[in-house]
Amino acid sequence: MTPTPQPPARRDSLDALFWPRAVAVIGASPREHAIGHSIVANLQAFGYRGPVHPVNPNAKPILGLKTYGALHEVPGEVDLAHLVVPAAQVPQAMADCGDKGVRAVIVNSAGFGELGAEGLRLQQAFMDEARRHGIRVLGPNCQGIINTDPSLRAYCNFTNTMPAAGGVSLVAQSGGVGGFILQGLADIGVGLRMYASNGNGCDISITEILRYLGDDPGTRVIVLYTEGLADPAAFLEVASAITARKPLLAMRAGRTARGAEAAASHTGALAGSGRVADLVFERAGITAFDDEGELIRAAMAHASQPPARGPRIALLTNTGGPAVIATDALVAQGLQVPPLGTGTVNRLREALLPQAALDNPVDVIATAGPLHFRAALQALLDDDAIDALLVAFVTPSFTDTQAIAREIAAASAGGRKPLVCNFMTDLAQERFRATHAILRDGGVPCFAYPSDAARALAALWRSQVRRDRPAESPRRPVGIDTVRARAVVERAHQRKQAMLPAADVMELLACYGIPFASSRVVGGPDDAAAAARAIGFPVVVKIDTEAASHKSDVGGVVLGLADEAAVREAMADLQARCAALAAQAPLRFVVQAQLRGGEELIVGASRAPGIGHMLMFGLGGIHVEVLGDVVFELAPVAPAQAVRMIGSIRAAALLDGVRGRAPLARAALAELIERVSWMVHDLPEIDELDLNPVLAWSDRAVAVDARIRLLREAPTAGR
Amino acid sequence: MTPTPQPPARRDSLDALFWPRAVAVIGASPREHAIGHSIVANLQAFGYRGPVHPVNPNAKPILGLKTYGALHEVPGEVDLAHLVVPAAQVPQAMADCGDKGVRAVIVNSAGFGELGAEGLRLQQAFMDEARRHGIRVLGPNCQGIINTDPSLRAYCNFTNTMPAAGGVSLVAQSGGVGGFILQGLADIGVGLRMYASNGNGCDISITEILRYLGDDPGTRVIVLYTEGLADPAAFLEVASAITARKPLLAMRAGRTARGAEAAASHTGALAGSGRVADLVFERAGITAFDDEGELIRAAMAHASQPPARGPRIALLTNTGGPAVIATDALVAQGLQVPPLGTGTVNRLREALLPQAALDNPVDVIATAGPLHFRAALQALLDDDAIDALLVAFVTPSFTDTQAIAREIAAASAGGRKPLVCNFMTDLAQERFRATHAILRDGGVPCFAYPSDAARALAALWRSQVRRDRPAESPRRPVGIDTVRARAVVERAHQRKQAMLPAADVMELLACYGIPFASSRVVGGPDDAAAAARAIGFPVVVKIDTEAASHKSDVGGVVLGLADEAAVREAMADLQARCAALAAQAPLRFVVQAQLRGGEELIVGASRAPGIGHMLMFGLGGIHVEVLGDVVFELAPVAPAQAVRMIGSIRAAALLDGVRGRAPLARAALAELIERVSWMVHDLPEIDELDLNPVLAWSDRAVAVDARIRLLREAPTAGR
Repeated sequence: MTPTPQPPARRDSLDALFWPRAVAVIGASPREHAIGHSIVANLQAFGYRGPVHPVNPNAKPILGLKTYGALHEVPGEVDLAHLVVPAAQVPQAMADCGDKGVRAVIVNSAGFGELGAEGLRLQQAFMDEARRHGIRVLGPNCQGIINTDPSLRAYCNFTNTMPAAGGVSLVAQSGGVGGFILQGLADIGVGLRMYASNGNGCDISITEILRYLGDDPGTRVIVLYTEGLADPAAFLEVASAITARKPLLAMRAGRTARGAEAAASHTGALAGSGRVADLVFERAGITAFDDEGELIRAAMAHASQPPARGPRIALLTNTGGPAVIATDALVAQGLQVPPLGTGTVNRLREALLPQAALDNPVDVIATAGPLHFRAALQALLDDDAIDALLVAFVTPSFTDTQAIAREIAAASAGGRKPLVCNFMTDLAQERFRATHAILRDGGVPCFAYPSDAARALAALWRSQVRRDRPAESPRRPVGIDTVRARAVVERAHQRKQAMLPAADVMELLACYGIPFASSRVVGGPDDAAAAARAIGFPVVVKIDTEAASHKSDVGGVVLGLADEAAVREAMADLQARCAALAAQAPLRFVVQAQLRGGEELIVGASRAPGIGHMLMFGLGGIHVEVLGDVVFELAPVAPAQAVRMIGSIRAAALLDGVRGRAPLARAALAELIERVSWMVHDLPEIDELDLNPVLAWSDRAVAVDARIRLLREAPTAGR
Repeated sequence: MTPTPQPPARRDSLDALFWPRAVAVIGASPREHAIGHSIVANLQAFGYRGPVHPVNPNAKPILGLKTYGALHEVPGEVDLAHLVVPAAQVPQAMADCGDKGVRAVIVNSAGFGELGAEGLRLQQAFMDEARRHGIRVLGPNCQGIINTDPSLRAYCNFTNTMPAAGGVSLVAQSGGVGGFILQGLADIGVGLRMYASNGNGCDISITEILRYLGDDPGTRVIVLYTEGLADPAAFLEVASAITARKPLLAMRAGRTARGAEAAASHTGALAGSGRVADLVFERAGITAFDDEGELIRAAMAHASQPPARGPRIALLTNTGGPAVIATDALVAQGLQVPPLGTGTVNRLREALLPQAALDNPVDVIATAGPLHFRAALQALLDDDAIDALLVAFVTPSFTDTQAIAREIAAASAGGRKPLVCNFMTDLAQERFRATHAILRDGGVPCFAYPSDAARALAALWRSQVRRDRPAESPRRPVGIDTVRARAVVERAHQRKQAMLPAADVMELLACYGIPFASSRVVGGPDDAAAAARAIGFPVVVKIDTEAASHKSDVGGVVLGLADEAAVREAMADLQARCAALAAQAPLRFVVQAQLRGGEELIVGASRAPGIGHMLMFGLGGIHVEVLGDVVFELAPVAPAQAVRMIGSIRAAALLDGVRGRAPLARAALAELIERVSWMVHDLPEIDELDLNPVLAWSDRAVAVDARIRLLREAPTAGR
């Protein structure tokens, strides 16, 4: 009988899934290419170190293995069982697994949640059994897992790529995508550590798998494919912990799914549904990709190369054109191809052929031999002003390409600086395959196209920038009255009021120390005149009503009121114009100091289910409405994050004073953003918030108009 | 003796290069891997149909061929000779070729212009010989050509990729890049028609080769790699003629070359050196690429697929996730993945498995067989609301993937709509290699990654959009006085004046019917008062001097002058402030009507050597200075092009009236741009021109400030 493998000491409920000591395949099939056959065949072909127990009522041997008529007949303990039976039989099979003491089950069968109500009922039924027995479940409707650890070699999966062992682990929400990424990694020679695809994910989640891979010492790099984040807060926590230790490369698809929800505020409308995931990726320190090919190629660079210490790249080539392309691609990715220092140029001049180009790119020319490459590689590795190397290497028939490859591999093996190779050759020819093998076996990431090599190097640098980023902990500003703020919100909730009246808005802003233009809420012309006197002229009068959501659209704002008479007249006018609204409820108005000058900005927040709120910052007016020049962050923000938001809009230069104007008070603005972020963090009932405009000068920033909408059961009227 | 091939009738001086009836290799070498050996070996290996004559003083047989001690000993006519001799011997070898009657020479040798003065002298020497004998020269420092025509099979080249015959021709400025594109095409199974790389290009240019390939009936698609355009006007003419008949896919590298020239105007500064090539590509109808991998993959789609009739793509898949990625990529490229009509959905429902998804993407699910694929393919091909198909195809072990591949190939072979395949499989397995062969031999472009497939399809659509674009011929607007305009320019040239004085600027604008705010040039307070009276108040007074190039910086503008007294005061003030300038030359001033309201815009032009001028259009103020939101075109522009420029700025929505303002007069603005474009077209002496601002209202557009700088020998003072 097959010996039982000895996986690491059990500490985790996913150990049975990723390190099974024995595997049963319930629904194993003698029919070639059936899923229940492929799994058994894959376990055998991959050299699984433990026993495989096919289970099938026919009980005839499958692939030479003793097959059992039922699970309870299987001798010994079974850590992991595959279920490859019709959906309707899965609940009973799960119960059988429980009786047998199985710890983890991969439900390969489909026909559950993805098919609607009846499928969901079956899914619920087998999960009830699983929970009753403490079984962890991967799937249903999933492929399974692979663990390439030489002591185990568990291929509990029906895909057909047989990966080499290595340090890259892969987790994919879609088995189809997981399959081709697995294939893509194998095609370019990247060794795999572990793989999991969790299908419908009704128990074990992507986040849980990520955590497990993060803790696995054999996993150097994690590659993730997802189409959304079920629990963004949990994901953020787990992913952040991982990226502090190892690179996490990820791609999120499904950006163009139809039917994004409508939103009532600027912030809501501009936020969009996918932006939360982008912000979570960014904050978690994930190296994100839009292109799956780029992700796969970046994994190759991350698998073998040390971290990049900086963005200064030296190009070394034996042919001109590809280095030109690589330079373009490096610069487009924000890297630098700096001129080389005199010391390095002198070393190169002594060592290289007279026709060589000693600038960066260094062109050793096509006739260069291994010693020329060695000298150039050494000079560039020794140059402290160079952080990483891109070697563009063609294989002229008249040079000893294998000896050159050995030089490149040796330079890479030193591990002093990241090195990637744009290797251009004809792999149909044996001598060049041998050259390629030298590079590959030497751990040199090879790319056929210069831009691909450049982008892989850029990804390495992006990962490092994220890892080096100082920890930024949001810290609560002083002078926040959370008790009073909560009272305001609860009062509004009791009134079943979604859009807060001005008095409540002003109180909330005051609780959080958010500067707001001096204002009073009034009912009629007399109050208004008194308020104006107290505030000081000129003033503005605005209607305060939920129905007039964009006040200027209904003519509900009167500006530039210079004295009491003007205030009274404006009030009368507003009352007349809004008579229809007054029929529903008594009207209130806001008298506000009219501020002079100042740059118009917008600060907003929008609820992001599962992770709190997104903050938005931008220049006001056309910048937000026409140009969409806004930036987002997750609340709450650390001081440095608020400062970075302000500097990240395209028009940031406008904040620093154009044509002689004084620079705006970025620090005051950052503090305002920070305080808003704490307000929405403390008050999850806030659905949307817009401070629009915020006016900023060289010494302060003050909100002039503010709207806050709370959540309530029924959708807001008018949506 | 080898029979002489019979190429098409000779009509073109490049026929001898691309259709040689006999080839001599001067400097042929018995040493394996020497260039002079590789060329002979390649001609043999590729099955060249004509005689190959090695020439070498040793005269020992090379690769079994009789070798001649000198060219004159070779019997019969020689169309094409390779020169693989040391640079110093090339002029004499060229003379020998002339004596022998050789019509085309490929100079493979290096050591010429790329090495400086001595090399240039040698280059000049052999070109003198070539011209004397009417020899066309490819190179020096180049690879050569390939012609895969079955009747010829000329591999006059020392690269080592042996391409299959096909319809894609390749021309590359860099042999290194040409080599890897050649390899890239071969790697993905794209057949080659012709290839040429012209190295230093001292005689036969990229443009000339392009023209030749455009005329070649066997070339279906042309792929071009270039690092710049030596003669953009000639290139534009040739490329435009080609794209009317066949797709021209091109990539331009070298965007990040250091040392762009400084410029004095907004237009000049924003134009940048590379932008001319982009505009030429755009106007020529070229399908342009920034990424060489994408270019190579697009060539595969273009080589076998019919033109796309529209942007509406149907996705057909047997697995979910990749279709999600493909949808993202298609939409990012501006294509659509529309819902399917009821008729098609009903057809699909009848034909597919119950679990299939009938939306777009259509997911036939993994267990679908060939008949399901056939039915779905037919339904989508029959749907008039679908323009092209992307098939994402995985190879589950439990399906007959070869039969499915035959269905996909049959659907593609019908040629009704473009079809590309995202084929995800393990090519290490024989059965899947066979599946791949069915697709490849059926002319189905296969891509391993969904995004790559999507972008190749998008490129097919881009090519079609360019081909379908109506011809846009610039036509001279009425009322242009070219005679007077030329006189103004010549007068300034005689005065050796680069920056034109206001009087000349105004006269030029008048000659071209370009509206300019009512203005007069004056010398002192009295003239100014009279001018202001004639123009009507309020007015502006500005200093008119070359030295005060940014007038407001030196305080040389006074606004809002409401009466004569104010004008006199302002003039006195200006004269006092500019006393230092007045010491050099008598000062002139401009009195101008002060226009009210209007949106600030900028229209400019900047000389683009070799192709006339680039026009620039943008919104004024921060939009041009901070946001860089400007667009460019080549002058002269057709009316539709001027209209498109206006609509192409990011902030174009601002022109249509924001917050209740009336839309601006786009037609008037377009006519102004058109007239400026004719001015710079007619007057090549204009180096830079800025109309900044142009003010636009709902009924007109008027230039308010204008600067025109002419070329002159010495650089302009102050630069």
